[in-house]
Amino acid sequence: MTSTAAIARALAGDRRALARLLSRVERDDEVSQTLLAQIYPLTGHALRIGITGPPGAGKSSLIARLIATYSAAGRRVAVIAVDPTSPITGGATLGDRIRLGEFHDDQSVYIRSMASRGHRGGVAATTASLGHVFDAAGFDPILVETLGVGQDEVDVAHLVHTVVVLQVPGLGDTVQTLKAGLLEVADILVVNKSDQQGADRLVRDLASMLSLGVRNDRPRWSPPIVRTCASSGDGVDDLIGALDAHHAHLVATGEFQARVNAMAAAEIALNIRREIDRRLGGSSSGKDWSDLVAAVAERELSPRDAAHRVIDRR
Amino acid sequence: MTSTAAIARALAGDRRALARLLSRVERDDEVSQTLLAQIYPLTGHALRIGITGPPGAGKSSLIARLIATYSAAGRRVAVIAVDPTSPITGGATLGDRIRLGEFHDDQSVYIRSMASRGHRGGVAATTASLGHVFDAAGFDPILVETLGVGQDEVDVAHLVHTVVVLQVPGLGDTVQTLKAGLLEVADILVVNKSDQQGADRLVRDLASMLSLGVRNDRPRWSPPIVRTCASSGDGVDDLIGALDAHHAHLVATGEFQARVNAMAAAEIALNIRREIDRRLGGSSSGKDWSDLVAAVAERELSPRDAAHRVIDRR
Repeated sequence: MTSTAAIARALAGDRRALARLLSRVERDDEVSQTLLAQIYPLTGHALRIGITGPPGAGKSSLIARLIATYSAAGRRVAVIAVDPTSPITGGATLGDRIRLGEFHDDQSVYIRSMASRGHRGGVAATTASLGHVFDAAGFDPILVETLGVGQDEVDVAHLVHTVVVLQVPGLGDTVQTLKAGLLEVADILVVNKSDQQGADRLVRDLASMLSLGVRNDRPRWSPPIVRTCASSGDGVDDLIGALDAHHAHLVATGEFQARVNAMAAAEIALNIRREIDRRLGGSSSGKDWSDLVAAVAERELSPRDAAHRVIDRR
Repeated sequence: MTSTAAIARALAGDRRALARLLSRVERDDEVSQTLLAQIYPLTGHALRIGITGPPGAGKSSLIARLIATYSAAGRRVAVIAVDPTSPITGGATLGDRIRLGEFHDDQSVYIRSMASRGHRGGVAATTASLGHVFDAAGFDPILVETLGVGQDEVDVAHLVHTVVVLQVPGLGDTVQTLKAGLLEVADILVVNKSDQQGADRLVRDLASMLSLGVRNDRPRWSPPIVRTCASSGDGVDDLIGALDAHHAHLVATGEFQARVNAMAAAEIALNIRREIDRRLGGSSSGKDWSDLVAAVAERELSPRDAAHRVIDRR
């Protein structure tokens, strides 16, 4: 499944070929990289939207609502869901997956779960790679669902055009449940389950964090706080409106190109990190690394010269 | 002040030459690296002890007690103090510096303050470099004082033989005041100001964290919890005893060499990171980087190929 014909079939809409291509790319080895090199020039058309929030925030229910809305407008939607548990053990996200199952036979929707562990290149880099496949295959928008608790999730936020951060009342202090770096890159804040107790206070807290305390890096854009109730559907239109408004803002201000450049820069940086890790820890270079460390420990080589040997394979 | 003669004077005990050499190395440029390459083969003799804890924990008072004890035993002690504020604005550490001023005329003690910002190679790497100068100049032990709140401090902990983590009662929840990664690498825990209310509970909390919750990466070593009162001097002998016991443990178990290797590995990794940052952001390569990002954003070049161009300067 690495022939140009198979790739062409996958990108042309053959779902089984697409599934195989996604799996092959997710394996993140040399073959994956060769495939990506072929696919990458075909990308750059889809809007990528990150949707992040703690477990129990109702991300998947909200995503189901977004899929329905976009599909009704004739768009083909892809979802990349980064699960904290393996696809097999399931856990808390199993219910969400069942909820998304209603789209199982919908040819215009493709939902891909991804385990959050075991990715040699890192979750964020692999998420970007899968996004490239969907992008080249004509899906638009591409929704990337993450938990918003680790560095990986912050990295993912740098690889999408729009970052939606979900919060719900009743999970304790807002600041505690969010990785700090994530509010800085939020384009839209959503208070989901807004019919529940504490929703008003959460909206107020988020508003004051935005106006006073928390730095937000988005130029000339004040992140709106949208109240939704994914179970009833209330507020979903407001969220779609906010997403459209953010997209229009990016285009109107010229910020869109800056965002695309920032995404490219973040993905290059992830690839640099991966390549250095490979040179440090790869099975072939393991022996070399031990020898380098021993030479530095013995004062035969300076740490800096050792660093150059790793980077430049001198 | 880069001549071999000047380096020889600095390492032979000329304090003005030493001060100039430290400043030159701290500047962290090409000349610094050339100097370090000359100095590094002369190092590997001093014991390096990291002392970390939040502001107000009494680190400097305790260090003053340690200096007095080591000096009385005929040892030449160096201190590298990483200040969160600039040396000029002073702030909370000014009082500490005055307290350490008693050693100003003591030829066997050298105290070096280092601003925590503006180091191109990172605080941890620069701390290691200054340590190499003191090491080559015959100082032993070398005490490295840090705040224990950021990634830099965790990095510093990987560049010393023994990590002492200070806590004091009354600063709120233990877990909150410590960077999580720091307890994992603590060799000795100190509850300072142990005459104050809450000290017993803090000792109990730390003990249960060590026995139950918190992972500690130190093989075959149970970090002792030492109660001190730097102002009265109570418990300082116990801390010296714990430091000696840890050193003896490292030597007896063969763990000392493993630690030296780990320090070498950490310093190589910091140098790799610095070199990559230099290639990414250096003034000379800034234009190249923008061009690379633009090429990736335009889909003319894949992120992975761009990464290889940065690393391999292809």
